[in-house]
This record gives sequence, C-alpha cells and structure tokens, in this order.
Amino acid sequence: MTQAHTAKALFTTPSLIGQKVTVKGWLRSRRDSKAGLSFLAIHDGSCFDPIQAIAESTLTNYQSEILSLTKDCALEVTGTLVASQGQGQSVEIQADEVIIHGWIDNPETYPVSPKRHTMEHLREHAHLRVRTNLIGAVSRMRHTLANAIHNFFNDEGFFWVNTPILTSNDCEGAGELFRVSTLDQLNLPKDDQGKIDYTQDFFGRETFLTVSGQLNVETYCMALSKVYTFGPTFRAENSNTSRHLAEFWMVEPEFAFANLNDDADLAEKLLKSVIKTIMQERQDDLKFFDQFMEKGLLDKLNSVVNNDFIRVEYTDAIEILKTCDKAFDYPVEWGLDLQSEHERFLCEEHFKSPVVLMNYPKDIKAFYMRLNDDNKTVAAMDVLVPGIGEIIGGSQREERLEILDQRIAETGVDAEGLYWYRDLRRYGTVPHCGFGLGFERLLGYITGVPNIRDVIPFPRTPGNAKF
Amino acid sequence: MTQAHTAKALFTTPSLIGQKVTVKGWLRSRRDSKAGLSFLAIHDGSCFDPIQAIAESTLTNYQSEILSLTKDCALEVTGTLVASQGQGQSVEIQADEVIIHGWIDNPETYPVSPKRHTMEHLREHAHLRVRTNLIGAVSRMRHTLANAIHNFFNDEGFFWVNTPILTSNDCEGAGELFRVSTLDQLNLPKDDQGKIDYTQDFFGRETFLTVSGQLNVETYCMALSKVYTFGPTFRAENSNTSRHLAEFWMVEPEFAFANLNDDADLAEKLLKSVIKTIMQERQDDLKFFDQFMEKGLLDKLNSVVNNDFIRVEYTDAIEILKTCDKAFDYPVEWGLDLQSEHERFLCEEHFKSPVVLMNYPKDIKAFYMRLNDDNKTVAAMDVLVPGIGEIIGGSQREERLEILDQRIAETGVDAEGLYWYRDLRRYGTVPHCGFGLGFERLLGYITGVPNIRDVIPFPRTPGNAKF
Repeated sequence: MTQAHTAKALFTTPSLIGQKVTVKGWLRSRRDSKAGLSFLAIHDGSCFDPIQAIAESTLTNYQSEILSLTKDCALEVTGTLVASQGQGQSVEIQADEVIIHGWIDNPETYPVSPKRHTMEHLREHAHLRVRTNLIGAVSRMRHTLANAIHNFFNDEGFFWVNTPILTSNDCEGAGELFRVSTLDQLNLPKDDQGKIDYTQDFFGRETFLTVSGQLNVETYCMALSKVYTFGPTFRAENSNTSRHLAEFWMVEPEFAFANLNDDADLAEKLLKSVIKTIMQERQDDLKFFDQFMEKGLLDKLNSVVNNDFIRVEYTDAIEILKTCDKAFDYPVEWGLDLQSEHERFLCEEHFKSPVVLMNYPKDIKAFYMRLNDDNKTVAAMDVLVPGIGEIIGGSQREERLEILDQRIAETGVDAEGLYWYRDLRRYGTVPHCGFGLGFERLLGYITGVPNIRDVIPFPRTPGNAKF
Repeated sequence: MTQAHTAKALFTTPSLIGQKVTVKGWLRSRRDSKAGLSFLAIHDGSCFDPIQAIAESTLTNYQSEILSLTKDCALEVTGTLVASQGQGQSVEIQADEVIIHGWIDNPETYPVSPKRHTMEHLREHAHLRVRTNLIGAVSRMRHTLANAIHNFFNDEGFFWVNTPILTSNDCEGAGELFRVSTLDQLNLPKDDQGKIDYTQDFFGRETFLTVSGQLNVETYCMALSKVYTFGPTFRAENSNTSRHLAEFWMVEPEFAFANLNDDADLAEKLLKSVIKTIMQERQDDLKFFDQFMEKGLLDKLNSVVNNDFIRVEYTDAIEILKTCDKAFDYPVEWGLDLQSEHERFLCEEHFKSPVVLMNYPKDIKAFYMRLNDDNKTVAAMDVLVPGIGEIIGGSQREERLEILDQRIAETGVDAEGLYWYRDLRRYGTVPHCGFGLGFERLLGYITGVPNIRDVIPFPRTPGNAKF
C-alpha cells in the first residue's frame, strides 16, 4: 500500500514542512468553517494529538462525502504539510485528496460516539474503548512502561525467564486457584474412593494457573545469577474492587548473592528508572493524565524520581502508628499485618515519601522468606507509595535447608511437592532475593487512573471474561 | 553484600587487569595441578565461558575445602585479575580468598553431575538443567531473542498489547481447548437440561485458555494502527512430537492500512532484524551451538540475513511440486494443504532459500482471511525456512463486513460470539493484516536445538506439568 507518515512523524520532522505527505487514520473530529472548508482531526494512535487536515470545498468529494464524516470514520489524506495558521497545533495538512476507507454504521448508536461516556460503559465496549483519548493514552503508556522494564533489566544484566502458566504447584499455599482441565465435565473419571481421577486429565495430575513465577524462577537464578519474570498471573479471588483483577501481569526479579538491602536497592532503582524513562518518552500522554486524571501527577512522579525512599523497620513503623494521633479502623499491634490505611498514613502523612518497610514478623509472611537472627522476623520488605500503598513486595529467600524445612513444617506447606525447590538448597545454595511488582498497579500509579480495570485491555474479574 | 564483577565484565573490561576483583558463581570444574595449586572454573551465567581462578595451596582452606569442591558448589573468589598464562582464556583471577557458600549434597547422585546426561534425563530435572552449558546458552539466547523482538517492534512504532489469557471466545473454531473453572468438580451445578450451569462459574460463562490473541489485538489495531502481542498461548492437542507444546509463546503483530505484501515485508524484516541482533549480541553462545548442535548454523543464519526471501504463489508452488521428480508421501493437488515434506522440498531443495508462499485456497484457511478477487483464494501467507518448514503464518484480514459474514456462515463459526469482531467492520474499517510467529519454533531454528521442549524453561506436554 502507499506509504504514509504517522502523525508523530509529521509533528516531529521539520524537514517535512512543504512536502507532500499522506496520513492514514481515523477521524477524531470535524469542524466546518463558514468559509466553506472543513478541519479534520485525524488520529492514528502514534501519539496523543491528532493531525489536522484542511479540506477545501473544492475537493471532488467535499459535498458528497467529507461533509458526512463522523468520529472514527477511516481516512487517508494526502496533501502538503504546512506550518499551522491556527492555535493548538504546529503543523497541518492542506489536503489534495481525502479517501474514505470505512464509515460508521449508524453514528447515533455508535458505542464510542463523541459524547461523554462513563468508564463502566466503556468497559462494556472494551473492543472499542481504545478509540477514546483516555484508553489510547493508557495503551501507549502501558507499552512504554513494559519496554522500560525490559530495558532496565537488560541493562542490569538480568535475563527474562518465561516461567510456566500451567502448574501443578501451588506456590504460596494460597487457596484461590483456577483449575485447568480437558476432562469431560459431564463424565468425570473417578477413582475407587469416588475422587476425580486426574491421572486421566491432560497433564496426568490436577493442574492450575500460576499465582506467581517466583519459585520457578529461583531455579534459573541459581545458574544465571540475575533473572526476572514478566508475565500473566492469576487469582481466583472473588474480589470486586478497583484494585483486583483475576488476570494481571507481574514482574518478578530474582538475583543471587544478594540480601534484603540489595533487594530494596533494586526496587528503588527500578521504579525510579522506569518512571524517568516514561516521563521522557510519553510527555504528551502524561500531560493529559496530569490535566484530566490526577492533578499534580507530574509533581508526584518527579518527587519519586528525585528523592530517596525512606527505609523503616516494621517494628519502628508499629511504634509510629501506635503513638500517632490518627484513629485507625484496624488495630495496630506488633505481629499484625499492616492494612492499607496504615501503609498510606506512613507514606502520605508521616514520611511524605515512598517508604520501604523491612523485616516483618515471620508469622504473617510466607515460608520461603529468610528468618532473621532474632528468630521472630523475616527479611521481607514492602515498598509503599503515596496514594496507593503497597506496590512491591519482596524478600530475601531462606537459603538454609534446615531452616527452610522448619518453616515449611510450621506453615503446613506440602514439602513433597516442593522437593525441587528444596533441591536448590541442597545443591550450591547461595543467599538470594527478589520481589514482585504488580504491573497494572504501577501503571495505575503512573497514569493516575483509579480503577485497575482501565489499565489492562480486557479486564478479567468475577463474572467477566467477555471478548 | 560485597559487590562482585560478572564473568562477562571481567572478560570485556581491560582496565580491570591488575585490579582486585571479586566474582561470585558456581564451580563448573576443578583441575588440580601437580605444582600444588588448583584451577577453578567459575560460572555465573553472564556469558558462555566460566572465569578461571587459580587457587594456590597456601590458601588457608585449600586442604580443608578447596580440594573437596565439586561441580556447582557456590563460590565467592576475590583476587587479582591477570592476563592468563594458559590457553583458552584471556584473563584469570589469582585468588586471595575462596569462600564457599553452598556445597553439593552427595555429588555422586547429583542429577546434573559433570558426566554426560541425555536430554530426557535433563527434562526430568528441569529445575537443575539450566546449570548445563546447553540450557544455559539456550536461556541467554531466549532472553536476547525476546528483547530483540520487543526492540524491533518498538523501533517500528508498534505497541505491545497484552491480550487476555482467559477468554470465552474460541478464535479459530479449533476444538482443542483447556477449560478454566473454579466450580467444585464433585458437585457441579446443572441446569434443568442436565448441562453444566456455567453461570455459576467464576466468570459466569464457560471459559478457556486463549489459542491466539489475534482477534483481540485487531481491536487495538483499529485505533493504534500498529500493535503486537507477545505472550503465552495454549493448545490442548494430544501431540507428543518435538514440535508441539501445550503452552508456548507467540508473537502476533497486526497493522492497519496494509495488504499481504506489506505483511510479507514485515515478516521478512522482523526475522532478518532479530537474527542479526542475536548474531551480534550472543556470539559466544552461537559459537557453541554452531560447534555442538548444528554444524553450519552460522552460515545458515547469515544466509537468512543476507538474501531476499522468495515469494511464490500457492498455485505456482503446486505446479512445482507436481512436476518435480520427488516422490511425496502425501498427495499434491490444488486445494489441498501443503505438508511439511512439501514445504521443506520447496525451501530446501527447489529454492534453497526462505520462501513466502502466498494466496492459498480459501477452503483450507480461516474465516477471517481476506477473499481475493478470484473468489477462490484468500490473502494468506506462510513463511517457510529450510530445516523447519513453516515458521510464520499470516494473512490480510477480511475488512468487508458482507464478505466476512459470508465466510463466517460458510465456515460455521459462531457469529453471535463474534459480534465485537464484526463491529470492527461496521465502525471505521480499514485494510489490515498480521501474522503469528511461534517464539519457541524460531528459537529452535536459531539455536539448532531440535526438540522444542529444550528451548522453554518448563515444557508442558501431555502428561507433564511438573514444577
């Protein structure tokens, strides 16, 4: 097909001014002037702004077609790129030809017509909502954030490892799993005790969707030294909140010869680096979010990039919470987990900064976290950010077999199924650590979009797997 | 923890010679000299080669520990980096201190002991096999290939879109699906006709693992113009071959205002670009594959990078196959699909080049492929490479609603479930195309590793979802 320029290229390539150019995209808006010409704003997704084309009434299809164009008609415009006379754009196209590729069937009922729509309405039409300014901008931000994460790890010498989605392990002992099966549901094979006979299932055993790639990726860490996962994970939690998805993407680095301080260093460096990158590369989209989604967003992000995260012991945080004036809904006591209200008080009101909370009581943490010498706490950390609370959770892993076994026994995890995880401590064990970062939670933080369902293309939540 | 240098940094940073350095990793081998010193080869995964450390018998733990070290003991060595006296390495460490972090429990029964192991044995111990030269090299190649793919698309202006893993759609009408459910298998709710009542399941309807993100990503293509997926996909096929996995990663670009030639152009450009990148960035690993896995691998890859892919009409290919001297197991007739033997004959013997086969009979292709003006063929293409056959399959998509509907009816696909896909043709439709690239198949091609189970960390095949 004829080559076209992207809107982004037209805006950023001064040498194109005065040249014949072609742009292909969708009509964002049409404005007809009394002077007998129309301004067509054409969007192709390459950047936030549409490129404006001026269609004179002398065009052969001006009356027959151009005056009937509505939002999201597909267009191809060829003309001369000129410095813009009007406000609001630097360049525009003086159109010689406007070809219409696709019309809008019944613009009155078009689900993403130019009027205002609620976020709920847009979620109902998730196949069309990327045609809005908001979801278009979110989509570009999502891409750039993902790219920044991959590049950060590549530059730091980490290898991307694709841990399995289908697994017969249940990593954290969490019960909320999706079962995966090819058995005929109406004719399930049973064993002589009346239980389902999963030996006849596709994988010959009961199989689930992964809740975390951590345990798997630790195996690769023990040979490649620095690794990370970045892929979909699943929770069958019946949570209908703005913070939960049944399917979401998680980033889980794991690195060898490292302790909890190294873990916190990496978390801080990662967050600062990717936010810095996205502020450079997506200025146009971020300006939109700052204006229409979260006032002060850019200041918030600048502050994350430019200030050290404050590191606080869990034990000290409990003291701060107990002695402050604030009344909390949930109790504060050494040994209890912190609730969102506590986390947000610490980073939003007390420290006014991102905070890394470290060394939690062992009884509220997972079996694989390294026991500290006090025998009461484990080398766990959470990174809390203002406005959202926990965004990263990690730990140094227990590398000593005898203590790992003790913790497995204490927490009631199935030791037999973890023989391979225990092997890592039997064969060339080393201190190592890692963390998990919820990709959508970070994207929500960076865009200011309050509902996590609006930062993933097709959100999966209880009752919703449409499209 | 004390900072260490990676082996890669020690090999590639001349200014470190003469400096005190620390390296942390695992022992690949130990050789004791009669002169009363030991050569320790330490591997940390950062590159193919281990770094050699020379441990003199004067070290305090020489007798007590160093002489007992076996493969994969975890070590930390500090000493002076010096130009190597021996053959085979450029630099080595004159050790001042050797700290042992982890021993090998019973080296005799250690599953990845230094002796030769079969690939089947290594698959049984997938949690340890990355400690071999082969799987370590595959893992670095996998990372670099993935990175090259992301960077290629980013540079070309494509946005990464994470299409859903869980879906209630069945994209290609293929029957081989994994069902995902949280229903209690021993107490399944039924409707009044005795069928399973999926309205009570987690998503309120029958839900499966995706077999392709294509239909979903087309929705994003219609606003962002250039998009791609890169994620896991699933096939519940009971195929126990060296080419099939139940869980594999797929790359699916989709771009607007483009036809089948543009599609073939992109496929060729992508393959050449990522192979070129990996040949620059993973020279050490590729040398190993060229020597021990596939003689002539580098020549093969160079030839792909440096020669134009030959484009052939399906109809012409049938003529070539019918008139050649070769006896095939499967029949050759216009209207029949090509088998692997035909594809390999075309690219390996007839053309001796990668081949793009174009315009297949409509009856052997999917409903969404664009009908050509001859009314008999569709704008589909397959990219065939010597040694493997099909590596990419793509098409221009049918953008005309009435013809799409006709094809949906002809092929018996569920039109109602596809209302949202049809909407793309009702609202601002444009010519567009895309293709699917099996990531593991490409990685197998680039490494010469013959079994696809050895290029993914934890392969899922019938009867196997261990780890």
